[in-house]
Amino acid sequence: MKIKLQDTVLLLSPDDKTFLVSISEGKTFSSHLGIIDLEDAVGKNWGDRITSKLGSDFFLLDPTVEDKLMKVRRLTQIVYPKDAAFIIFKTGLKSSSRVIETGIGSGALTIALANAVSPEGKIFTYEKRQQFITNAKHNIEQAGLLDYVEFNCGDARDGFKETEVDAVIIDLPSPWYGIPSAYKALKGGGQIASISPTYNQVEKTAESLERNGFVNIETLELILRYYQVKPGKTRPRNKMVGHTGFLTFARKGEKSIDENEV
Amino acid sequence: MKIKLQDTVLLLSPDDKTFLVSISEGKTFSSHLGIIDLEDAVGKNWGDRITSKLGSDFFLLDPTVEDKLMKVRRLTQIVYPKDAAFIIFKTGLKSSSRVIETGIGSGALTIALANAVSPEGKIFTYEKRQQFITNAKHNIEQAGLLDYVEFNCGDARDGFKETEVDAVIIDLPSPWYGIPSAYKALKGGGQIASISPTYNQVEKTAESLERNGFVNIETLELILRYYQVKPGKTRPRNKMVGHTGFLTFARKGEKSIDENEV
Amino acid sequence: MKIKLQDTVLLLSPDDKTFLVSISEGKTFSSHLGIIDLEDAVGKNWGDRITSKLGSDFFLLDPTVEDKLMKVRRLTQIVYPKDAAFIIFKTGLKSSSRVIETGIGSGALTIALANAVSPEGKIFTYEKRQQFITNAKHNIEQAGLLDYVEFNCGDARDGFKETEVDAVIIDLPSPWYGIPSAYKALKGGGQIASISPTYNQVEKTAESLERNGFVNIETLELILRYYQVKPGKTRPRNKMVGHTGFLTFARKGEKSIDENEV
Amino acid sequence: MKIKLQDTVLLLSPDDKTFLVSISEGKTFSSHLGIIDLEDAVGKNWGDRITSKLGSDFFLLDPTVEDKLMKVRRLTQIVYPKDAAFIIFKTGLKSSSRVIETGIGSGALTIALANAVSPEGKIFTYEKRQQFITNAKHNIEQAGLLDYVEFNCGDARDGFKETEVDAVIIDLPSPWYGIPSAYKALKGGGQIASISPTYNQVEKTAESLERNGFVNIETLELILRYYQVKPGKTRPRNKMVGHTGFLTFARKGEKSIDENEV
Repeated sequence: MKIKLQDTVLLLSPDDKTFLVSISEGKTFSSHLGIIDLEDAVGKNWGDRITSKLGSDFFLLDPTVEDKLMKVRRLTQIVYPKDAAFIIFKTGLKSSSRVIETGIGSGALTIALANAVSPEGKIFTYEKRQQFITNAKHNIEQAGLLDYVEFNCGDARDGFKETEVDAVIIDLPSPWYGIPSAYKALKGGGQIASISPTYNQVEKTAESLERNGFVNIETLELILRYYQVKPGKTRPRNKMVGHTGFLTFARKGEKSIDENEV
Repeated sequence: MKIKLQDTVLLLSPDDKTFLVSISEGKTFSSHLGIIDLEDAVGKNWGDRITSKLGSDFFLLDPTVEDKLMKVRRLTQIVYPKDAAFIIFKTGLKSSSRVIETGIGSGALTIALANAVSPEGKIFTYEKRQQFITNAKHNIEQAGLLDYVEFNCGDARDGFKETEVDAVIIDLPSPWYGIPSAYKALKGGGQIASISPTYNQVEKTAESLERNGFVNIETLELILRYYQVKPGKTRPRNKMVGHTGFLTFARKGEKSIDENEV
Repeated sequence: MKIKLQDTVLLLSPDDKTFLVSISEGKTFSSHLGIIDLEDAVGKNWGDRITSKLGSDFFLLDPTVEDKLMKVRRLTQIVYPKDAAFIIFKTGLKSSSRVIETGIGSGALTIALANAVSPEGKIFTYEKRQQFITNAKHNIEQAGLLDYVEFNCGDARDGFKETEVDAVIIDLPSPWYGIPSAYKALKGGGQIASISPTYNQVEKTAESLERNGFVNIETLELILRYYQVKPGKTRPRNKMVGHTGFLTFARKGEKSIDENEV
Repeated sequence: MKIKLQDTVLLLSPDDKTFLVSISEGKTFSSHLGIIDLEDAVGKNWGDRITSKLGSDFFLLDPTVEDKLMKVRRLTQIVYPKDAAFIIFKTGLKSSSRVIETGIGSGALTIALANAVSPEGKIFTYEKRQQFITNAKHNIEQAGLLDYVEFNCGDARDGFKETEVDAVIIDLPSPWYGIPSAYKALKGGGQIASISPTYNQVEKTAESLERNGFVNIETLELILRYYQVKPGKTRPRNKMVGHTGFLTFARKGEKSIDENEV
């Protein structure tokens, strides 16, 4: 399959920088290694080289879901790939999963979730600030995943319309606002995942999960270490992101008789 | 949907231990908290409780891909969820992806990959030891994912039959054995991922990737930290898996004229 | 200097296990690799080999402060070397430092502190449970550091007798109990260090330090990763201690006029 | 004890920045929060406040060994406090220890070692580049520790003059150059420590140690995580130093008859 007009391409520079561009007639891209005529990409194969006016070779790559997630227009801190990947795996998402997400942030996690449940599943996202929905919708459209997302402007505390969903993903400053609504919306044994930067949030979230009938509650953190790999000079890199967030997971359990009376 | 005979169920004990069982007539399960009549589960909902003869309540959960991966019959060290999840995300897998895997190990990673590409994609796995294929096949069948895996008994050095695949995942003691074959099988810009426990392997892998026309080479490690979350007593857990493996990723780039001559 | 009767020796086995023994007439040590006549060590040099009855060579090593710390008779969780070392360095201890410690635990940290301030300094330790003092005293005596420690049976909340000390080290379940007393006992700009396993303790400790006139408050954690180093097989080890404690440091600052009025 | 002319003072700003200054007549210090007349510090107590012309209060602190180490004039990457502290502890240094160090770098580690062995011990440092000695000497003098360091301009491969030393600390790009010389200079059972940033160095170092009669070889890494501690907002910090170096430790053992013949 050849690259054609309107395609979104990830340009990879010789010094391993990446740029997400869309190909159109007469359009150029000004890189730190010279100007590139993007139209030159048309008719080339994915993985081919394109040469800047200063003579540097760039590779034309098909953006993955990670590239799309990292290149969103950001109004907020985004959920990072390591966390998005683990949320998707741990909650068991696959094509056909029906998933509620709240809130939407910049849509980075939504992109990852939509990619995981396509083509048969759907993400139902709830966000109370319309401006965030607008920005996220733009990002999700750029990522080509609009068909798998349904947008709702609303507060998690007011409940979700869907029932019997497979999973609920919470990315709110007060995750516990979404927990009772999540319990109602989930199928029996369904998964909940929450991401928060502080211990204090984690502690209140776990308490709320337990009180609301969730079981198998686990909190964890993924730490990502990049390596410099060179013959004879291999070592962990100096720079590192020290923290993104804690992840908490649980499943909806049948409440005991006492719990139901409450 | 009710639980029925032949279903595979994850039993969750009150002290957060999990057991994967299949439901059949007259079958019992002996847990550390008493015997459970598995037939009692029939007709219950997912997430419901079942009581052992000693009076302990167990939850009946629908096993996720993570549960299936962790409960495989092991002939080898398995690829852990944190690594499997990141490989899937980083290589951009989704329903419809066509992926080569070599070698199969105990089939744990194969289960994760098959889940990610179902229902439209396929995993083509290459493994030279028939006994490993037999065991992995059993595990993949238990996981209900046999339709998405094609087994090949063979050595990665002898090449792969498929072409234009989206990704190649290498889990071999000598990952570089699979790299030239991977280059040939991949589509332009296609993804390669390799997992290895030692830095020596990583160094040789990265060298081989560069020599063989791969670009955007990255090596990283995911460290998973579990937390004890209790009101007023929240802290990282004492016990921790110190290391599973290093992950190396790259994409197939067009070779330069010089490289092609070689 | 030759090894003589009554010396304390660290035996190192061929498989890197260590045993702390004291040499006396006719005494034997039963190891997993055979019985050793300890008297055979007399007259040998430090670093020499001694052979067990089963023919295994053990090395005779002079125990370091780390060996002494790790081999204490434990009534409690001990402070680990990585944390003890950093506390000593960060608080600037050296021979001649005068330091208050509370509580004593099993005396492991006390041994490290006493070693650091010897021969001219002193550790003043406060502990409310006599049984802990008795056990710690035994351990400190075994370590040959009794001259540098003064024991007080008492509660940190009741204050310390000493004034103008260089540092106060707090290892209490409620570190904030010791903070006002520490402020009074410290010289201007003097150092305080606290070690606690939970984030809840850390949060209350930092609040108390700020309220009590301490400045330059820092909280950190040291994570220790051991490596398997073998030609061609070098990697992080599988087993790892996931967490010991958080360390909080601060210095005594002059209170503002408002603070003094309180 | 009052602050007087010529004293070295650590200024702590309200926003937790630190500056190492020496007090002299008429001297001012221009901070980001206004100019400070350093002479105003004379006669104040350690820990007292001093006010800048813009009205900000700075604290006058007695610099610790950590402050001195971090503020050296750098010609090289320095050994960080976490690593220096652990080297000192693990090798069992104390007042009276006699220690060889090679190479000197910017003298940061030398400062830490000299502080640990003062007042009765001595650091014998070997460095082949005179310009590094000159810079390090300046830094060690600023730290007030010149009395505890003896400088030698020479290559570790040519051997050390001292014998029966307690420890040898190696900070060389090729640590194995210093290992045979270290064996000769150490007392029986004496300690060796080496610091290196790459795996490749660590692997060659461990091989050389084993070949040269060292026992109890251990390699480890310390990872330092800083925390933001605020009521209700406590979390690991975003920024983090990803890697400084690997530490390898061993002790001099008696060589077997075979080894001596070599």
